[in-house]
Amino acid sequence: MNKSRKTIAVDMDGVIADTVAQFIHWYERDYGIKIGKDAFHGKPEIEVLPELVMKKIVYSAGFFRNVPVMEGAQEALLELMQDFDVYIVSAAMEFPQSLPEKFEWLKEHFPFISWRNIIFCGDKSVIGTDYMIDDHVRNLDCCKGKALMFSAGHNFGIEHHTRVNNWKEVIEFLKKEVRED
Amino acid sequence: MNKSRKTIAVDMDGVIADTVAQFIHWYERDYGIKIGKDAFHGKPEIEVLPELVMKKIVYSAGFFRNVPVMEGAQEALLELMQDFDVYIVSAAMEFPQSLPEKFEWLKEHFPFISWRNIIFCGDKSVIGTDYMIDDHVRNLDCCKGKALMFSAGHNFGIEHHTRVNNWKEVIEFLKKEVRED
Repeated sequence: MNKSRKTIAVDMDGVIADTVAQFIHWYERDYGIKIGKDAFHGKPEIEVLPELVMKKIVYSAGFFRNVPVMEGAQEALLELMQDFDVYIVSAAMEFPQSLPEKFEWLKEHFPFISWRNIIFCGDKSVIGTDYMIDDHVRNLDCCKGKALMFSAGHNFGIEHHTRVNNWKEVIEFLKKEVRED
Repeated sequence: MNKSRKTIAVDMDGVIADTVAQFIHWYERDYGIKIGKDAFHGKPEIEVLPELVMKKIVYSAGFFRNVPVMEGAQEALLELMQDFDVYIVSAAMEFPQSLPEKFEWLKEHFPFISWRNIIFCGDKSVIGTDYMIDDHVRNLDCCKGKALMFSAGHNFGIEHHTRVNNWKEVIEFLKKEVRED
């Protein structure tokens, strides 16, 4: 680790992994019901599909292993790694069966991220990075560094964190931080 | 999390898990060679057993799942949790097969530790707890809080961190910190 470089914690689900697309895909595949991304607008993901369906899906083998990559995430992390130490920080401990799946997923889609820079945790309150990119307000509210809220249906209307709508906006924000540093 | 309580990162291997006892046990079981704890004195664990044997052991299924609990660790963590928010922070990412094993081991031996307080990581440099209890100097050297070095053969002779020889000494040190706070 280069001590002069700032550190960033990057969330997985909803930030580099398109979990919503995976929910939609699995719901149609297993139950024949097609819903759009707009169904996730303005409410917690747990309230979009029937609760038992949701729980069954997130505890199923293969759900996290096969989630699509969020658009632009790979190129963006490669670019950020030129200026920052990038850590993947996922609240994976709630779904312990996801631990090896998430590790394998990262190895496949983000092979340039070292195992040294992967953190699977429960709550994120003791993560001491300079920046945190996350879609969940509960993580951003208690983070020690600067918070960047990655847009998701469930964080619609929340305005007390800097919002970034996509990976292009993340890059723009952080490149500006580097210039001003 | 109670914001007024200080946080502690507690390492697993060599601190709450008696990994050395497990090395000795497996080496004798699989190779018929009995060594004592003193063989680990003053050198890295990787240099005690033949390198290929060591690597085979740490990547074997069941090694981490069945490691004995370090003497006094359970009672000590229960006592510390009265005054501190205790996080288990293990550099498990180097051995990804250990992730589910370590989670199950914690569930069995430390059922009072919530999944919210478990962190599996690579390097520990972005862990922002007030205290870190660890046996590895590389983790303590870059930790953000106060470092407590848990005695192990491999850290013999290193004197730039506060040394604790067992869980009784950890409790004594931290109870004193609470009184002086």
